[in-house]
Amino acid sequence: MPVQSKPHSPSTVALQNLLQPVELHLEALRTFLNGQVEEFEEEIREHVAYCLKHSGKRIRPMLLFYGGWKGEGIINPAHVKAAAVVELVHLATLVHDDILDDAHIRHKSPTLSRLAGPEVAVLVGDALFAHALNLAADFPTTEVCKTVALATRRVCAGEIAQNFQKGNTELSRALYYRIIDYKTAELFRVSSLLGALLADYPAAFVEAAGGFGRHLGIAYQIFDDLTDILGKEENAGKTLGTDAANCKLTLPLMLLAEKFDAPERAAFVQSLRDGQVSGESLRERFEKEHIAEAVAAAFDHEIFLANRCLEPYGALPPVHRLLEISHFVAQMVNHLKH
Amino acid sequence: MPVQSKPHSPSTVALQNLLQPVELHLEALRTFLNGQVEEFEEEIREHVAYCLKHSGKRIRPMLLFYGGWKGEGIINPAHVKAAAVVELVHLATLVHDDILDDAHIRHKSPTLSRLAGPEVAVLVGDALFAHALNLAADFPTTEVCKTVALATRRVCAGEIAQNFQKGNTELSRALYYRIIDYKTAELFRVSSLLGALLADYPAAFVEAAGGFGRHLGIAYQIFDDLTDILGKEENAGKTLGTDAANCKLTLPLMLLAEKFDAPERAAFVQSLRDGQVSGESLRERFEKEHIAEAVAAAFDHEIFLANRCLEPYGALPPVHRLLEISHFVAQMVNHLKH
Repeated sequence: MPVQSKPHSPSTVALQNLLQPVELHLEALRTFLNGQVEEFEEEIREHVAYCLKHSGKRIRPMLLFYGGWKGEGIINPAHVKAAAVVELVHLATLVHDDILDDAHIRHKSPTLSRLAGPEVAVLVGDALFAHALNLAADFPTTEVCKTVALATRRVCAGEIAQNFQKGNTELSRALYYRIIDYKTAELFRVSSLLGALLADYPAAFVEAAGGFGRHLGIAYQIFDDLTDILGKEENAGKTLGTDAANCKLTLPLMLLAEKFDAPERAAFVQSLRDGQVSGESLRERFEKEHIAEAVAAAFDHEIFLANRCLEPYGALPPVHRLLEISHFVAQMVNHLKH
Repeated sequence: MPVQSKPHSPSTVALQNLLQPVELHLEALRTFLNGQVEEFEEEIREHVAYCLKHSGKRIRPMLLFYGGWKGEGIINPAHVKAAAVVELVHLATLVHDDILDDAHIRHKSPTLSRLAGPEVAVLVGDALFAHALNLAADFPTTEVCKTVALATRRVCAGEIAQNFQKGNTELSRALYYRIIDYKTAELFRVSSLLGALLADYPAAFVEAAGGFGRHLGIAYQIFDDLTDILGKEENAGKTLGTDAANCKLTLPLMLLAEKFDAPERAAFVQSLRDGQVSGESLRERFEKEHIAEAVAAAFDHEIFLANRCLEPYGALPPVHRLLEISHFVAQMVNHLKH
């Protein structure tokens, strides 16, 4: 058997399989978003186009399209617009996050904050968010506006809570979950919920789809927090190690800190704060204490909770599709562990 | 005649007269806004309360209440809510502005950016804006949401354009007006427009009220730009001289720069940039070149345009009230000149 010159990793293949049924939806979204650049005032356009060009995996739009799945080849324009709303809000929060974290790289490119300065990044983030709400106001009722505005406020609250906890050596798991529930899971929840809602699925399923998205989002953030320590920058496409450097006690760091007694824990956090813990030494401690396995267990639990939300609705078309997403996300953590 | 121990300036008396008819409206707004603090996630509440406590003159809510004026003592709850929306958007932009300008004082108190750090200020600004849109989505139709979201995008575009022009020695007046039209006049426009709209006044008047607010807003920003150079910090209640220090070519600075030939102009902007122009020397040059008078003429022209928008509608109850506002604003610039 000939050796392939560029072998595809199993995760790349799985992602392609996952994306294939919504390829046309995502293409429609790309076209729609590119068309939106013209809607921005001329001073902003270049920056908006840059952010759109260097945006990520479109996991939230995918959740939205699958949450409202009706069958192969059916593209609902309301879904495309709602996906644009969610993606623009997500982009806005990334642009602002990168200012706060002083991150240099995102989606394999310089962050806007790095490229154009934090002043411009504050304003472009605001404009992206404003335009998202502007689009949300195009729907016949105020429901999309309301849902998205509320979600955004929660995302901010999550970010602020995380900011407050920097360097807190006794962060509780409850607070960690509250933070990631707001800062990440909320937009996942809204994505799958809006998909189902705009496809006119029954209210109970709309809620269930939201619950699925929420637990998937929590799992996704746990994965992201583990990537920050164990991942490789060339795969992640962004600056890693920022959580430890910024003294953000994420679940992996918290699980490690729990292995110490209180004074050791304080010393550990102090050494994080002083920048005296290298990524390498952190990875060694993780291996020694089996932290990745403990994180994976917490992650698996959220995937389980996500899937359970859908159990009563197996007969509806979106369920099979949504389960494919959670299956894909579930695999991601395994690639990181090994 | 006995000398008063604490004489009131004519402008204080005029402001009191102006506010008196909407005192109850503004009280209802204060109560409503204070009630909103509880709606924010607990991590944000303290900061939101701080921003609300140290907010300003409520000129936008006043415009909104007068734009929808029906008669003494009539308080429309839709007006109170819309005023809260506009005021929260305004607060959000102030919180973000103060990060960009590195301003220390606003409304006679430390800015949030100074007090809690720029990271928190970015997020609290986002949350204030998100909550504004959340409230806007409470109206029966999406019109308020749409208007406010669009306005916010324009405010951001104006700020970005201004940011781009820092240190541009050949800024055109057309661009200056475009910048302040977006960054300031837009929210003035939306305030008076929403007032009239929510009071069910005829569409033509709703537009006219918007036009009035817009020109008044341009005048107000011209006044503000002059205050930055000629004002006294104890009266203004904020850090002054930041425009020159940040190389923002405002109308007053532009009019002064126009007195120079191109090389002198470049040298002037360079010396601004190097922080070598003291407020005192700037004020001396202003006096010598009669800049304040030239600025006042541009200001007066906008007041004229504002009032002219209302001319066909003299019979409607809001017109008399709105003209009182423009009359008051018109006086402000005189106090500064002398």
